[in-house]
Amino acid sequence: MPPPPDPAVLHGMPLFAGLEADALGDVVGQARSRLVPRGTAVFSQGEPAAAGHALIDGRVKIVQTGPDGQQVVLRFIGPGEMFGTLAIFTDGVYPADAVTVADCVELSWPAAAMTALMERHPAIARNALAIVGGRLREVQNRLREVSTERVERRIAHALLRLVRQAGRRVDAGVEINFPLSRQDVAEMTGSTLHTVSRTLSAWEAQGIVESGRQQVVIRKPHALVAIAEDLPAADRP
Amino acid sequence: MPPPPDPAVLHGMPLFAGLEADALGDVVGQARSRLVPRGTAVFSQGEPAAAGHALIDGRVKIVQTGPDGQQVVLRFIGPGEMFGTLAIFTDGVYPADAVTVADCVELSWPAAAMTALMERHPAIARNALAIVGGRLREVQNRLREVSTERVERRIAHALLRLVRQAGRRVDAGVEINFPLSRQDVAEMTGSTLHTVSRTLSAWEAQGIVESGRQQVVIRKPHALVAIAEDLPAADRP
Repeated sequence: MPPPPDPAVLHGMPLFAGLEADALGDVVGQARSRLVPRGTAVFSQGEPAAAGHALIDGRVKIVQTGPDGQQVVLRFIGPGEMFGTLAIFTDGVYPADAVTVADCVELSWPAAAMTALMERHPAIARNALAIVGGRLREVQNRLREVSTERVERRIAHALLRLVRQAGRRVDAGVEINFPLSRQDVAEMTGSTLHTVSRTLSAWEAQGIVESGRQQVVIRKPHALVAIAEDLPAADRP
Repeated sequence: MPPPPDPAVLHGMPLFAGLEADALGDVVGQARSRLVPRGTAVFSQGEPAAAGHALIDGRVKIVQTGPDGQQVVLRFIGPGEMFGTLAIFTDGVYPADAVTVADCVELSWPAAAMTALMERHPAIARNALAIVGGRLREVQNRLREVSTERVERRIAHALLRLVRQAGRRVDAGVEINFPLSRQDVAEMTGSTLHTVSRTLSAWEAQGIVESGRQQVVIRKPHALVAIAEDLPAADRP
């Protein structure tokens, strides 16, 4: 087990924004920290929600499986973000699997400790409300996209969302800074591996993206925006 | 303007669950109540989120319009539910239109008053978190359905969700207790008016549903569950 975390790790986490130093000390004092190697389940869909979680480093994929075994990627969690915490306040059961897609450091708080922290520091509940409100909007946008847009635009939107969340400037353009497979993109956009492969190949031929087995680089972000927003071809850079 | 509301109207509202009588008095003292006739916009997408809202009576449709003008019904709000409140805590802009589909009585709290009430009564923030968590799950489920299920199952799921939310037992079966058009069902399921009409007509021929211009009655809820869960035909009642 790593040494007890320094309260400084909480700085910049939206869940704890606006807390004074002693409140941050209280929060970190209740936390358990652990290293989680890539490819490990942090929690599994259907398990009792024993704890709330926040990611310090790495990347976690949140995947929900339907009754027929079909999967949807709900979100990739990055450093500083909370995950698996809402279940404490809803039905007490994790609604999805959380799997590390890189080596991770996570903090967690037992459910009772998280509830008590929110009692002592109401700013945490308000912060959580803002975070969840933002995620609700994001899922509503995705629902609208899947319901009304053709697949090429949905794939462009999904990649742009990942660029905003985890883009890193590299020589060739902007890289999505964690391992991302074509199957992941299919499960984020309600499409199939076949369609994602065909679409990415066409975009590669046009010099818009470059994609390896687990890596995507956007070479021409403006061209991707044009596709996402369905601008007429003449306006496409 | 109706007379100042009685704190009793707040009883049974999940947003104010667990509040003592004096806290409920504080909440209701800050509220404005008004009658809103059917077919009126309570607020519009893109407007500053001036207030948080709760419905006392009637039904409100929450509709989001995409950049291309395509619409998605995000939710029907029923008596006792909050709506348009999260925007205060996110970007301060209503993310959708709220339109009354029946004559309504609503309460609203100016944004600053709602924020101050949550400061004074932290249980409100925790309740809001549980409510939003539940709605996030619902939208995640719909995203999974739209992404992975064929349209007939999505329509069955949407109707069953409405039955749970607003079902009323009638002689012929269970009625969805507010005006619901086929276009609404299309905008709830990422399908088209044509597809919804074709599907409902087939179900009517099988005696599963009965639908008028603005009314849906489920005659055989178990048959609808069988369709939603994709049970083999032999298992269908």
